[in-house]
Amino acid sequence: MPKITRDQVKVPADVLADARETYIDNYMKATQGTGRLMLFACDQKVEHLNGDFYGEGIDISDSDPEHLFKIADQGVCGVMAGQRGLIARYAADYPNVNYLVKMNSKTNLVKTAQDDPYSPQLHDIEAVLAMRDNGVNVVGLGYTLYLGSEYEATMLAEAGQLVAQAHEEGLIVVLWIYPRGKAVGKDEKAPTTIAGAAGVALCLGADFVKVNPPVATEDKTSAENLAVASAAAGRTGLVCAGGSTVEAKVFLQQLHDQIYIGGASGNATGRNIHQRSLDEAVRLTKAISAITLADYDVDRALAVFNGEEDFAL
Amino acid sequence: MPKITRDQVKVPADVLADARETYIDNYMKATQGTGRLMLFACDQKVEHLNGDFYGEGIDISDSDPEHLFKIADQGVCGVMAGQRGLIARYAADYPNVNYLVKMNSKTNLVKTAQDDPYSPQLHDIEAVLAMRDNGVNVVGLGYTLYLGSEYEATMLAEAGQLVAQAHEEGLIVVLWIYPRGKAVGKDEKAPTTIAGAAGVALCLGADFVKVNPPVATEDKTSAENLAVASAAAGRTGLVCAGGSTVEAKVFLQQLHDQIYIGGASGNATGRNIHQRSLDEAVRLTKAISAITLADYDVDRALAVFNGEEDFAL
Amino acid sequence: MPKITRDQVKVPADVLADARETYIDNYMKATQGTGRLMLFACDQKVEHLNGDFYGEGIDISDSDPEHLFKIADQGVCGVMAGQRGLIARYAADYPNVNYLVKMNSKTNLVKTAQDDPYSPQLHDIEAVLAMRDNGVNVVGLGYTLYLGSEYEATMLAEAGQLVAQAHEEGLIVVLWIYPRGKAVGKDEKAPTTIAGAAGVALCLGADFVKVNPPVATEDKTSAENLAVASAAAGRTGLVCAGGSTVEAKVFLQQLHDQIYIGGASGNATGRNIHQRSLDEAVRLTKAISAITLADYDVDRALAVFNGEEDFAL
Amino acid sequence: MPKITRDQVKVPADVLADARETYIDNYMKATQGTGRLMLFACDQKVEHLNGDFYGEGIDISDSDPEHLFKIADQGVCGVMAGQRGLIARYAADYPNVNYLVKMNSKTNLVKTAQDDPYSPQLHDIEAVLAMRDNGVNVVGLGYTLYLGSEYEATMLAEAGQLVAQAHEEGLIVVLWIYPRGKAVGKDEKAPTTIAGAAGVALCLGADFVKVNPPVATEDKTSAENLAVASAAAGRTGLVCAGGSTVEAKVFLQQLHDQIYIGGASGNATGRNIHQRSLDEAVRLTKAISAITLADYDVDRALAVFNGEEDFAL
Amino acid sequence: MPKITRDQVKVPADVLADARETYIDNYMKATQGTGRLMLFACDQKVEHLNGDFYGEGIDISDSDPEHLFKIADQGVCGVMAGQRGLIARYAADYPNVNYLVKMNSKTNLVKTAQDDPYSPQLHDIEAVLAMRDNGVNVVGLGYTLYLGSEYEATMLAEAGQLVAQAHEEGLIVVLWIYPRGKAVGKDEKAPTTIAGAAGVALCLGADFVKVNPPVATEDKTSAENLAVASAAAGRTGLVCAGGSTVEAKVFLQQLHDQIYIGGASGNATGRNIHQRSLDEAVRLTKAISAITLADYDVDRALAVFNGEEDFAL
Repeated sequence: MPKITRDQVKVPADVLADARETYIDNYMKATQGTGRLMLFACDQKVEHLNGDFYGEGIDISDSDPEHLFKIADQGVCGVMAGQRGLIARYAADYPNVNYLVKMNSKTNLVKTAQDDPYSPQLHDIEAVLAMRDNGVNVVGLGYTLYLGSEYEATMLAEAGQLVAQAHEEGLIVVLWIYPRGKAVGKDEKAPTTIAGAAGVALCLGADFVKVNPPVATEDKTSAENLAVASAAAGRTGLVCAGGSTVEAKVFLQQLHDQIYIGGASGNATGRNIHQRSLDEAVRLTKAISAITLADYDVDRALAVFNGEEDFAL
Repeated sequence: MPKITRDQVKVPADVLADARETYIDNYMKATQGTGRLMLFACDQKVEHLNGDFYGEGIDISDSDPEHLFKIADQGVCGVMAGQRGLIARYAADYPNVNYLVKMNSKTNLVKTAQDDPYSPQLHDIEAVLAMRDNGVNVVGLGYTLYLGSEYEATMLAEAGQLVAQAHEEGLIVVLWIYPRGKAVGKDEKAPTTIAGAAGVALCLGADFVKVNPPVATEDKTSAENLAVASAAAGRTGLVCAGGSTVEAKVFLQQLHDQIYIGGASGNATGRNIHQRSLDEAVRLTKAISAITLADYDVDRALAVFNGEEDFAL
Repeated sequence: MPKITRDQVKVPADVLADARETYIDNYMKATQGTGRLMLFACDQKVEHLNGDFYGEGIDISDSDPEHLFKIADQGVCGVMAGQRGLIARYAADYPNVNYLVKMNSKTNLVKTAQDDPYSPQLHDIEAVLAMRDNGVNVVGLGYTLYLGSEYEATMLAEAGQLVAQAHEEGLIVVLWIYPRGKAVGKDEKAPTTIAGAAGVALCLGADFVKVNPPVATEDKTSAENLAVASAAAGRTGLVCAGGSTVEAKVFLQQLHDQIYIGGASGNATGRNIHQRSLDEAVRLTKAISAITLADYDVDRALAVFNGEEDFAL
Repeated sequence: MPKITRDQVKVPADVLADARETYIDNYMKATQGTGRLMLFACDQKVEHLNGDFYGEGIDISDSDPEHLFKIADQGVCGVMAGQRGLIARYAADYPNVNYLVKMNSKTNLVKTAQDDPYSPQLHDIEAVLAMRDNGVNVVGLGYTLYLGSEYEATMLAEAGQLVAQAHEEGLIVVLWIYPRGKAVGKDEKAPTTIAGAAGVALCLGADFVKVNPPVATEDKTSAENLAVASAAAGRTGLVCAGGSTVEAKVFLQQLHDQIYIGGASGNATGRNIHQRSLDEAVRLTKAISAITLADYDVDRALAVFNGEEDFAL
Repeated sequence: MPKITRDQVKVPADVLADARETYIDNYMKATQGTGRLMLFACDQKVEHLNGDFYGEGIDISDSDPEHLFKIADQGVCGVMAGQRGLIARYAADYPNVNYLVKMNSKTNLVKTAQDDPYSPQLHDIEAVLAMRDNGVNVVGLGYTLYLGSEYEATMLAEAGQLVAQAHEEGLIVVLWIYPRGKAVGKDEKAPTTIAGAAGVALCLGADFVKVNPPVATEDKTSAENLAVASAAAGRTGLVCAGGSTVEAKVFLQQLHDQIYIGGASGNATGRNIHQRSLDEAVRLTKAISAITLADYDVDRALAVFNGEEDFAL
């Protein structure tokens, strides 16, 4: 199992001296000591309202928000990402989960055809620090940026300030960057656009950036195109959004390609996990982590998912 | 009569240690020690101007704003919700009422056809804390959010920050969430929309969320659809808005269904109460509280309303 | 002459304990110890530019801004309302006038047909408190709100915060509330609209609200319609704007009706006073105050205006 | 030569006690002890870009920004008005000039036909105070307001706050007020508009207001119309903008009329001065000051301009 | 090699006394003791996304962001300009580079046809000062302003405040000023526009301004037109943007003309350098610096570029 030492963590220069050990602690927790990120995305109750949690094809256990915490607690994840308020209401009962506070969110009610997207920051960073001081195991922050939106400027400014403040306090930062809006149109997943998003995350100083996998082109597979984006991200680790639920084997193969062909530094998966029953969801987090954090191949990861083999760190 | 103990209160993790007892005090006051909320809504003098207080079918006593305080004082309620200024002018004479300060409000003059709704925060939280320190019995805050409005972002940000600040100070928070605006159109009360609103409240960390009852659908009654929303709200208690004045029996049956079929954690009622004479209004608060806080059935609650039986906590 | 005692002043609960005596002082000064307000409105140099001060039918003395201060000094008024800067330039020479600082103002250059009205706050409250600490006799603040404007939200928020801050410091607050904008159209003076404005002032916590007199309707005179608004204002005193200059007897009769039929708690008069010569203007303030503060009937007030009888407090 | 004593300075009531002597110092410096202002306007490098400094009919020495400082240093002026940054780069070499920091500016690239004008405040007042504490001889602030612009509200608010802050610190304030925008159209220099602007400056508490000279009307000359505006300005001194370069005699006659017929309290001149060679520009400042500060008639001032007579204070 | 002494540095008057030595240190570092600036521009990963770093005609080494730091480290530059986050992630490994933090940035996704350009400030200056205190060798700040944009006001205000704050702290400031937007149209590089931009930079107090070279006109070459802009910039040094990659000899000749005919105080070059292999890029920085900092002629600079001669300071 590939591990890094605390000395190998590339601490950015905006982490203040007295927050340096905290930053390393958080980085090691979030990456489970591997430098790779397995992010369990749980911010959809705002982003997609209740549609991701209840309905056809979704296990009924997902209709109770506590399902998310049970998975994070029993499964193998780097961080569970959710809004501050959601975390606040359950964290006391799930103290060992590594929380990443998703700082901004919007609903899907207003479509891009009506207005370009803007996702507002829901509170200041002090609200997160207070909760951390209060004993909640917060290791980092997340923020979503829609590049190419007419509100890009506001989001760039909020994200830029957040990264600076988070690093000063020893928190890691994951940026979700999705090119979107009238100016982007159908190019949301074009390889050049995705690579651009990766570079922006680096310039903002993020520790990780979550992007959509680029489309395949005539000459390159999606994973090969992803490799260009991973390079553009430089010292910012790149992970791909999981998207809607697909069959486990397909999903695990994509993930393996993203990391071992595309140079991704992990994964960010939400619906694919939590729309399943608790047991199945827990096994999927283990299969994903086996690939992400322990270099398993797809077949062995699938065995983990199928319960033929357990996986623990 | 169902009661909870102080230990059973699920204190959210953003309530700071030194505000923990205050939070529990406020939660117990607001729910009268039951975990359920009977909210007497008195914010309509801004929201609907004078139309809810004077005119045909409205008891003349309602034209004097003090009517609201007399009802809250003599009836049985969890909290009386109104704007800070309104409370400030009468609270000295009604010191025992539990006040919930409604932080934002708009009038009904600009219609959605002209502009999507935005309800501005009327003052900072310090203005409320000062009043509390000055001796006013403030137990919590309220805030209205129009999801799907083009101003959704501003309201999400104001609400998110408010919950964090209120919890730090030991105040409970009730969010009024109404999907509304060009993007929502006629779906304001669609079950999926209402369930989405409930989940957003949880992610913002609210203690209670006030929503409109969802419409009935082909396969489900309104109360059955409400059950999905109640589940989506997780540890945030869900209560339904009372709407315009209807006959008492119909009203009490709806309320009973909301709680015992729909999983609601109480009710939020305004016009239905205050448009009546003081005596009748007081009896209605008791009938409502009998169902909400003491598990009465509809017939016995109706007896309370008819004055055949008294109800006190 | 009706007088109230200091104990009879209903001090709102947002007046902090150490500002309580100051608030009572200011309230007693502004109402000349009667609980009724005679407000001399002098904010038109911004609101109407120079058109109210120079031209046909306007006494030439009004072209010098000092005219306003001479009237306030020699006449009988509760407060003189004007912008901070105007007061700052003359107050040293007129130290005994009770000043009410009008916090916001707009010109009349941009018409409602071009854009809905917004009147910006011209400075923070600290700028007023500094001037008070510097020896200027400031007893309160004023703020204009255009309900129904597309900028209603901004003005509600500014006004709400101002009232809270002013009361904390012991200053009284008068809100000018005028429904106006595309959504209001020709209903600016409809009785329901005016009554709504009165209720909004109460919910913001104002001490007094200045509204336009409602129009007469089929079944009610203007003063009778005003009575509904006065009721809606509850513990917030309601006063009517004086409007453009009319013949003194007509004006005094209207005022008498507003108070003794319409339940108004005083008056707010500007142009009707200052467009006259100093002597005549001073006499008119005395006639108005005789009705407002001393329960004179119209005939006796007219005698005061005509100089047949003097009036002093 | 008319002089005022320190006791004759009408110190506004918002000048704090411990800044009173500083205010009087600055007022005496700016008016050279006369109560009248000779303002050398040097803010055009932003307002008009390079067009006022280079090209046909402009002396080549004006292409070097230091030209402005040489004129201010060698000529006779009350204050030199320019942006903070411009002053910062030369003040160390020209320590005796009285500087008035122009707080806001816009370029002329976006025309009124495209958007109504807004001139943003370029930095907070602390940035000016720091420079003053650092030894720069700053005596006051300037701010431009476009009344009737759709952005009037923002400028009124910025100006209102600035005057309060400047006076607290003992700085004088000059407001440039130009009615402009779609609502104003061709009435920018109508006498009623200019008089309105003068009154607004007073209500904001300005020490001086710079306006465009009103047009002549059927019954009155420009200077006679200006007299109405000067009256409306009350205790705020009114000065006229110099406009584009005209022949010296015409210019001096206009200035003399503005002061001795129009009641102006000085002048504000820029291009007319700096577009000339250093020697000629210096002589023109002396001729202007001879009229403004020393009651010379036009002929004698022209002799000063022609070098037939020197002028010094 | 032309050198200036510390005493020759014209320290602006807004550099506070206790930051004076720091300012001189930074100015001497940035100009390598010459008063001229060789700025290596590395902000394109946001401005142009990945298009400047990967693709046809671009050396593959440029796809790794660390390439930029290697060039800055091994080449000869005055400052390397990049976003705060980018610098934060590599500065620990490249401690000797002089960093200029580019405070604002936008992507190229939204075109001017859709909306006028606005480049948001990504964080406050405290975020930079914290990083400097943390040991990063930050010598100054950069900010991009689009004059003539409908958002000009916001950028003027941000830039104006930044210069004041930076100077107070002893940091130098470079403004990138590009006239752009519907109002500017095709005149982005018109000589009058460029000269105007230069004057604006001076009025904001910048130490250097980066502009596009003006076009040639009938009577003047580009460099001759540049001389007018250099004059307009006064004590603010003017440097030209390098633009897209051209043949080295052409590039060096242009640069030589800009400095020795156009009066430029250096250069600002990005793509022309980093799109080459490390070795070639390093040699180009030396050739450029030979002209900029050491008065080499073009032939000798070309010899440096070709490796026939080394260049070091």
